Amino acid sequence: MNFGEASAVTPGEEGVWKAEVQPDWDIFGVSNGGYLMAIGARAMSGSSQDRRPVSLTAHFLRPLSAGPVEVAVDTLKTGRTFSTMRATIGAASDSVALLGSFADPGALDAEDLYVGARPPDLPPPDECPRAIPSPDGPLPPPIVGQFEERIHPEDAGPLQGRPSGVARMRGWFRLDHEEPIDAFTLLLVADAFPPAVFNADLPLAWTPTLEMTTQVRAVPAGGWLRCQFTTRFVSGGLLEEDGEIWDVSGRLVALSRQLALVPR
Amino acid sequence: MNFGEASAVTPGEEGVWKAEVQPDWDIFGVSNGGYLMAIGARAMSGSSQDRRPVSLTAHFLRPLSAGPVEVAVDTLKTGRTFSTMRATIGAASDSVALLGSFADPGALDAEDLYVGARPPDLPPPDECPRAIPSPDGPLPPPIVGQFEERIHPEDAGPLQGRPSGVARMRGWFRLDHEEPIDAFTLLLVADAFPPAVFNADLPLAWTPTLEMTTQVRAVPAGGWLRCQFTTRFVSGGLLEEDGEIWDVSGRLVALSRQLALVPR
Repeated sequence: MNFGEASAVTPGEEGVWKAEVQPDWDIFGVSNGGYLMAIGARAMSGSSQDRRPVSLTAHFLRPLSAGPVEVAVDTLKTGRTFSTMRATIGAASDSVALLGSFADPGALDAEDLYVGARPPDLPPPDECPRAIPSPDGPLPPPIVGQFEERIHPEDAGPLQGRPSGVARMRGWFRLDHEEPIDAFTLLLVADAFPPAVFNADLPLAWTPTLEMTTQVRAVPAGGWLRCQFTTRFVSGGLLEEDGEIWDVSGRLVALSRQLALVPR
Repeated sequence: MNFGEASAVTPGEEGVWKAEVQPDWDIFGVSNGGYLMAIGARAMSGSSQDRRPVSLTAHFLRPLSAGPVEVAVDTLKTGRTFSTMRATIGAASDSVALLGSFADPGALDAEDLYVGARPPDLPPPDECPRAIPSPDGPLPPPIVGQFEERIHPEDAGPLQGRPSGVARMRGWFRLDHEEPIDAFTLLLVADAFPPAVFNADLPLAWTPTLEMTTQVRAVPAGGWLRCQFTTRFVSGGLLEEDGEIWDVSGRLVALSRQLALVPR
């Protein structure tokens, strides 16, 4: 089952969509947040004449496992260019709360007017180790078997218990079988790499995400995505992870930031 | 009227709070987004046993001017440490949609475990020009008269029509009369400086904010705040502005990111 199928939604009653959260898109049995955001975004898009996510925020209320879910979408504004909606994803109770603005892509200017950063420098994909799900333990988790992810050798240490000391994770991403990457896929990519904080030399375990916001700028050109995730501040009981996703043409296609809880 | 008074809320019916959006907290007659987020956050805090904003996202649906408003708060989850709520602020119709998680501050660890950045380098406040509302034109706007804001001389060019060419805005912030800065004030500070993009050499005018997320890490120590705002990507018809707010002790107290629309 490819990503498009695994994140599909079907219309139910007024404003409610049905989806099936698939097994093996999880970490420790908890469905991946970016994957759930993609499911939610598909329902929100379906409720707004197929507008595309521009900025989507999720707050994660309760862990969600594989199985049927409902996405309830509430439209707050339908403008000429943007639709703003909120939604919840849940089974018995709400697990994810979403708030986002979606746009008619044709209404946005495609031009790059100012670019004050460069894509991350990465060795070619075949010189970067691939993350493969562990048959024996929880890490790497099953979800990394759903796509092809290649980690910068300098950042791949945590997989062997050797963090670099710099809370950064860089790598390549593509879907299997040349499945094209659309705006919904970018929501997944932004949450699909090992946590950057695993490279900080800290005794950190599972850090549950409280909130994540992903902003989509463009649908990427086909091919590999260059990705970079950085944590700068582990403080106040919290840590942020900032993501940049660039396409093969060197264009920024998405920015993300998530806030996770550092267990006390 | 100080900031605490200007952003005060009073309880109304179940889950609904009343506030008075004050005049002169605006830009071109449109109330400042960070100021409105502070009003919304006070209502959300009041609905969650005075928990403090940790991550708050706002989508701006329609401009709001001075006058009475209602804040309707809907609690999605009340956990041991966090409460997640959504809210709307509006008069006749909804103007701002909010989604945020608030925490019991005592439940979060105060320690800095990893810090991968430094506060911005700024000359002393008295060597930085102060932004003063213009008596003749719309810029600088009335809101900058509500607090003391001092701009890094290298970034103050746009006030005289001379952008630096780098989309960055650094400066000091404090409230008048030594009013203490709390978590709600940080929501204002994150949106209180001239746009960083004014320093890019672009023919840009008013860029309406679509979405803003502010994450509060700590209540600052008393005194001046050091602030830095940067735009790296003006592309896809949109621009982000990333903010960092540091306190006088050199501690990061808030991160922000807003997404604004570049008029076509």
